[in-house]
Amino acid sequence: MIKPRTPPGVMELLPREQIAFQRMLDTIRQTYESFGFLPVETPVFELSDVLLTKTGGETERQVYFAQSTGALEKAGDGLPELALRFDLTVPLARYVAEHEHDLAFPFRRYQIQRVYRGERAQRGRFREFYQCDIDVIGKDALNPRYDAEIPAVIHAVFEKLAIGDFTIQFNHRKLLRGFFEGLGIEGMQQDLVLRELDKLDKRGEDAVRATLVGEGFGLAAEVAERLLAFSRVRSEGHDDALARLAALGEGTALFNEGRDALVATLQQLKAMGITESRYAINLSIARGLDYYTGIVYETTLDAYPQIGSICSGGRYDDLASHYTKSKLPGVGISIGLTRLFWQLREAGIVGVDASSVDVLVGLLDEAGFDDALALSQGLRVAGLRVETQMEAKKIAKQFQYADRAGIRFVALRGEGERTGGTVTLKDLSNGEQDTVAMDTAADWLAARMKERQA
Amino acid sequence: MIKPRTPPGVMELLPREQIAFQRMLDTIRQTYESFGFLPVETPVFELSDVLLTKTGGETERQVYFAQSTGALEKAGDGLPELALRFDLTVPLARYVAEHEHDLAFPFRRYQIQRVYRGERAQRGRFREFYQCDIDVIGKDALNPRYDAEIPAVIHAVFEKLAIGDFTIQFNHRKLLRGFFEGLGIEGMQQDLVLRELDKLDKRGEDAVRATLVGEGFGLAAEVAERLLAFSRVRSEGHDDALARLAALGEGTALFNEGRDALVATLQQLKAMGITESRYAINLSIARGLDYYTGIVYETTLDAYPQIGSICSGGRYDDLASHYTKSKLPGVGISIGLTRLFWQLREAGIVGVDASSVDVLVGLLDEAGFDDALALSQGLRVAGLRVETQMEAKKIAKQFQYADRAGIRFVALRGEGERTGGTVTLKDLSNGEQDTVAMDTAADWLAARMKERQA
Repeated sequence: MIKPRTPPGVMELLPREQIAFQRMLDTIRQTYESFGFLPVETPVFELSDVLLTKTGGETERQVYFAQSTGALEKAGDGLPELALRFDLTVPLARYVAEHEHDLAFPFRRYQIQRVYRGERAQRGRFREFYQCDIDVIGKDALNPRYDAEIPAVIHAVFEKLAIGDFTIQFNHRKLLRGFFEGLGIEGMQQDLVLRELDKLDKRGEDAVRATLVGEGFGLAAEVAERLLAFSRVRSEGHDDALARLAALGEGTALFNEGRDALVATLQQLKAMGITESRYAINLSIARGLDYYTGIVYETTLDAYPQIGSICSGGRYDDLASHYTKSKLPGVGISIGLTRLFWQLREAGIVGVDASSVDVLVGLLDEAGFDDALALSQGLRVAGLRVETQMEAKKIAKQFQYADRAGIRFVALRGEGERTGGTVTLKDLSNGEQDTVAMDTAADWLAARMKERQA
Repeated sequence: MIKPRTPPGVMELLPREQIAFQRMLDTIRQTYESFGFLPVETPVFELSDVLLTKTGGETERQVYFAQSTGALEKAGDGLPELALRFDLTVPLARYVAEHEHDLAFPFRRYQIQRVYRGERAQRGRFREFYQCDIDVIGKDALNPRYDAEIPAVIHAVFEKLAIGDFTIQFNHRKLLRGFFEGLGIEGMQQDLVLRELDKLDKRGEDAVRATLVGEGFGLAAEVAERLLAFSRVRSEGHDDALARLAALGEGTALFNEGRDALVATLQQLKAMGITESRYAINLSIARGLDYYTGIVYETTLDAYPQIGSICSGGRYDDLASHYTKSKLPGVGISIGLTRLFWQLREAGIVGVDASSVDVLVGLLDEAGFDDALALSQGLRVAGLRVETQMEAKKIAKQFQYADRAGIRFVALRGEGERTGGTVTLKDLSNGEQDTVAMDTAADWLAARMKERQA
């Protein structure tokens, strides 16, 4: 006998938790589709030489390789042939480069699949997790207007997920780099300063200031102060965001370009009718070092800042330079749903949902079995999700089962109902019970389900 | 520069093929849910000692193992710690045993995920493919009525997939083994005979007959004839199925038990209103050797018998004996959707679908941009999937783009429409074009989409 258990670092859910998770996945997918994004799925494994062309040391150490028994036996010194994807961005780059001539650009795709990272085992850290990505990829160029469509999608997703108030925050790498230029911080030092400012949340202002004026960086105290003041800029509301950008004044050409891009994005969001309390500028956002080149996004839950960003991304200049000579600029975001779901559950915001089953068709006596089957089939044709009780049981037991399983309605036909051509329907959510004509049963149920949704 | 390419043995689709595939997946999932099955997902990898407890040599040779870089470096002589699932049945057994005390029995789950097998590379053979499984698992016992619910689900799935006429065929292992008993074939020899009869489709009757009477088996010619005659039994229609089962006469207790079980299943299917041309008995079906113990199912497309079974399964006595002392009998089926999709595409039955985007909101002049954004958002609120054209282009180019992308409707507001509070809508499927008041646009589109669905 082997003890049944999952490997460490994976999230496996009981059915009702899985239903709650699935509803979130479905909402994200429907919203992505409502903005015209097309579905893409890629294989879980890529050829190692294709997948690892772009990654540095840290990522590569986290990659899982896959080998069949035969390959294990023949294994030489090189890397195994197959590696599991560790994000959806490298597979997207490979996909777009491989199918370039079959795709229409701008190419708008969503991809919702699991990715794999050999993280150190730790609470809330997962080795297998869902990413829900959208990207718009241009050929040669991509209109900056797409920069504003992305936060409109984020907005729609989190409104529909209804997990609390949220703020989509953005910054612009050109604004940042232009600001550095203006302070005389150039080249490699920009990356180092950026990396340091990215630690503000974790280390706090004092520690970061000390590092900036310390031996390694050697910045003047006044320069450090200006960097920190810049990083403190956050807006509240649409007009405040515009005012704060205006208050930055003029800078280098790059600086002005970044600022004007943010202004255009803000205006477009307003034209799309996005609630203005849902977006803000936050000039402390940097998002890593070398990938993003334009706007960058982070999204936080207002009541749970400690969860950190729940949806991040930005604009990049060239998606697939390792695979094609074509220039493919893009903009996109990713939601790490497994970790988010885990955090929301820890915070008590999501939990077990109602069952995905709408109706339990009960069975009171064996003579009613064929009848219960026909009733079940009839309700299915009407679009309901129906479980049929296959064995006659006491009525109290059947209600108890439905209640524990989170099934809202029970439908029953005893001898009386069968003789009278009726069915007894019970709504376990409020105890309402009715005996109605057979051909109105589906309507009775549909009306109550609709009420709940509204 | 690395050549972008996928590993051999995977199926990667272009967006419009992916949309067609996704529709099939969604149909299967919705149908599974309409019969009250609950969703389960398991991690792609299991601990090797947990996954491989049950498998024989052939399967184990096909298993993929996963290792992070760190694990590769430390690798000893034993098997790697993690292995990718090669089906959804072993993970189900592990899941039910692990979560036994948190599940309600009979436990009805569906699971739609990819599985991995190191198959020899070959056209139409996949190393990564979707399985779409349902199972009902009982604790200690499982009512035989579930045996008939499974083909009702299969029936609903393939009616809705609308890929042509199909026949769900079944046999019963007790009938088979009881028939062998009656011929004096006992114990291990039953398995050998079963394996031989399973080759009838591939080898033909003459070759199988020769083997049965040959040295290894040494069956009497008359016994071989009776085995072959039994295997030839197939029914057409409900009454014919009952008549053919009755014509088998009486046999051993096991034989009679199997026959009566098939009769009960047939009667239940009739009570559920399943079209009788869609199911039949076929006494040649054996489905492997040691797993199934009761009813077994196969489903074929009437016009494409060469595709073989597109949905198979059956009843088993004990799901998880390697993981728990509890007795967990069950019944279930699996659809291998990746291979099925590939075959349907080869046969020209499925192909590229219409886009998942319903409407392209075009842009005729830059002054109309904010207006196009607002129109897009309004249509989204009405439940439509909308792509917004971000750059003003010639009208012919925009129609051409929508047409090539498979987007059915284009919505446009030029200067005239903006002044008049109207919008011009075009249905590319028939050329119909109308200029309507802004607040009726969504209704105009919805009416035409509904028409198409009906």
